[in-house]
Amino acid sequence: MATKFEAGHVLTMDDSLTVYSPGAVVFEGQTLVYVGPPDRYRESVAQEVVIPEGVLMPGLINGHSHAAMSLMRGLADDSPFFEWLTQHVWPVEARLTADDIRLGVLLAAAEMIHSGTVGFADMYFEVDAACESVDKSGMRAWISRGLDKPSEEKLAQSLEFCRTWRGRADGRIQTMLGPHAPYTCPPEFLQEIAESAVAHALGIHIHLSESAEEMRQMQERYQKTPIQLAYDAGIFKARTLIAHGVYIQEDDLPYLEGLAGGVISCPVSNAKLGNGILPYPLLRGAGVTVGLGTDGAASTNSLDMFLEMKALAWMQKMREGKPEAFRAIDALWAATRGSAAVLGHQGGMLALGRPADFIVVDGKRAHTTPELDVVANLVYAASGADVRYVVINGHIVLQEGIITTFDEKAVLQEAQTRAEHLLEGRDGA
Amino acid sequence: MATKFEAGHVLTMDDSLTVYSPGAVVFEGQTLVYVGPPDRYRESVAQEVVIPEGVLMPGLINGHSHAAMSLMRGLADDSPFFEWLTQHVWPVEARLTADDIRLGVLLAAAEMIHSGTVGFADMYFEVDAACESVDKSGMRAWISRGLDKPSEEKLAQSLEFCRTWRGRADGRIQTMLGPHAPYTCPPEFLQEIAESAVAHALGIHIHLSESAEEMRQMQERYQKTPIQLAYDAGIFKARTLIAHGVYIQEDDLPYLEGLAGGVISCPVSNAKLGNGILPYPLLRGAGVTVGLGTDGAASTNSLDMFLEMKALAWMQKMREGKPEAFRAIDALWAATRGSAAVLGHQGGMLALGRPADFIVVDGKRAHTTPELDVVANLVYAASGADVRYVVINGHIVLQEGIITTFDEKAVLQEAQTRAEHLLEGRDGA
Repeated sequence: MATKFEAGHVLTMDDSLTVYSPGAVVFEGQTLVYVGPPDRYRESVAQEVVIPEGVLMPGLINGHSHAAMSLMRGLADDSPFFEWLTQHVWPVEARLTADDIRLGVLLAAAEMIHSGTVGFADMYFEVDAACESVDKSGMRAWISRGLDKPSEEKLAQSLEFCRTWRGRADGRIQTMLGPHAPYTCPPEFLQEIAESAVAHALGIHIHLSESAEEMRQMQERYQKTPIQLAYDAGIFKARTLIAHGVYIQEDDLPYLEGLAGGVISCPVSNAKLGNGILPYPLLRGAGVTVGLGTDGAASTNSLDMFLEMKALAWMQKMREGKPEAFRAIDALWAATRGSAAVLGHQGGMLALGRPADFIVVDGKRAHTTPELDVVANLVYAASGADVRYVVINGHIVLQEGIITTFDEKAVLQEAQTRAEHLLEGRDGA
Repeated sequence: MATKFEAGHVLTMDDSLTVYSPGAVVFEGQTLVYVGPPDRYRESVAQEVVIPEGVLMPGLINGHSHAAMSLMRGLADDSPFFEWLTQHVWPVEARLTADDIRLGVLLAAAEMIHSGTVGFADMYFEVDAACESVDKSGMRAWISRGLDKPSEEKLAQSLEFCRTWRGRADGRIQTMLGPHAPYTCPPEFLQEIAESAVAHALGIHIHLSESAEEMRQMQERYQKTPIQLAYDAGIFKARTLIAHGVYIQEDDLPYLEGLAGGVISCPVSNAKLGNGILPYPLLRGAGVTVGLGTDGAASTNSLDMFLEMKALAWMQKMREGKPEAFRAIDALWAATRGSAAVLGHQGGMLALGRPADFIVVDGKRAHTTPELDVVANLVYAASGADVRYVVINGHIVLQEGIITTFDEKAVLQEAQTRAEHLLEGRDGA
């Protein structure tokens, strides 16, 4: 039997950006069977949720994360990057067990669900444990094991992982190959990964052109930009999720022509680590898809995609020096359709036959009053804390602010204990 | 009789940045009578509030706002600046009545209280109505009437307003003179305002060096920077709140030497309008105080100072190209001590004899777990929605998320109706 949600506004994010005010969506199983005005759907439903003050929209898709790093939120913030990485993050990572990853992914899932994210593309390790938590959380995820040095064994394990988990949890889990970056994976290894990806029809998740230092190193080592290097290694023959892309330049555009996939911008990470601002107009002008992600909470501290939408809009307006350079709807598009398109996913919009992945945001709080422009309010005024319902693959995962799929309180308590323990270990205590 | 608040952490923001974990504050009347470990205070109290998962800290001070503009939130966002101002904002402003201002200030107060702001420095018109709403809301405010063209009459009215309202509402209301900017007030008028300010011991609230266009115009008209111009007009003889200051340059520093007051940075506004990033290191290096503000919600869409703290930190790190360039505590300092110092106010820190102005933030939600670094969590991970208690001048204004001083729901409903009406008027309907 079907479930019907009715709200003050339904933002479909379809190609015409149709908005129904009021509107309704109906789903059966994992799929939307109706999107439109509430009164035109006349069949009986098993359950009906009516939120007149709500804005119903596609769930946000976090296109780049390292979910389990949420266990390290607030670890040595504001330190110089290399010191932070080598003296703080790496020593903790060396001690992380599969149980920690299981816990860290649930912690991240709690935060993402509360703030309206329905799916995330993740690169990290202990990926079997990560998938178990994704399954439990009710979220959708594209999981890849980070490959950060040449290793036949790890590539073989990675392929085995992809075979095992691909399409599991009613299709909520998808798998990708995860060559970390061109400064950790030499060209020959990238080439091998690319060939494996093509052979097994897997997508690739890779960091490219994130920092000035990476650009300098790649120029020095290979006399190429990271994009040229990835292209030459055959990476772009597979669907590719390029994380960051801050330093992509005009010369890179021919290599990105016809790319399946696209760039996931992480504006908070790029600002907070001092890396810079994505050349959004250049990329969109060349037809490159741009999605949105948070990066790991160890560096960005928050997995709230509403914050990323704000940061994306602010940074682009500032980069161009004028308010009209980037619109609220562009941010909303990146966080829904953009990320979905990079991943080759059918979500990110509400239409017949599409996945029942949506959220309901309270649109009538003090900070979103008056409601003169629903999209501007969502992007510039709302926060993740305004999300009241999250539905993923036809299941209500957040109900009036309560997570239904796991014991959030227990996860938070365990995360605090475990994080303190990991830090003690770091100091040799 | 006294009231005691006990929390998991008390951040005093005193000169030593003392933190008590756990900690307590006790106030009697409008004043703090104890700040320290909970168990060292042994006297009986009339009321005790214990929040083990809470972080208690000084209330945030919004150093630059146009509160009533909240009625225009979402009005023609993403339009070119001049079009937005002349075709959208001005026509609505021309229709605003004293009742609208009363309503708009209460709407803004609702948002500010929910997000942990205890006081705000405002420049707008219908200031008597604004003060009535400040009084009702329980907030603290520094109100100035914007003077946007030479007018003896308006300056006289402005002085009369200052005399009438100064120190009212148990000292919560303070008044300032508000010459809008050097491109609307010529040097002679600025000079007259400066003399009046000195004569009546009033502070001055003025926009200076906000945009490249302003810099160009002032250079062309007067062959001076806005800072030089203000200095020459004698503005800095009074305590001066300089809003924005994005384009302050090395040459300006001698004019700012010994300034009572300082610069209020509005990083979200400066980014969203494409104006740029405050030269924070230059200003702090020269001993200029920097506080934090939101600007009006018609342009920034949000009055959440937690968002401004994030934006300030991100922008400064990006400007300098490294994460260590600006620390979380610097953002917290600007939003509390910085704004207070610019205004010459005793708040912004918790210590014996200081005003009982503080907030309690829930520190144990998914997005603030683990709690490894309380300050980093507050600045980079928390949002205004995490604020559970707000105490202003010894009164509990927000209690477990509920505003105690006015009927919030009625204000939001009226604001929606009124905003729609104002827009209809704009279109001649």
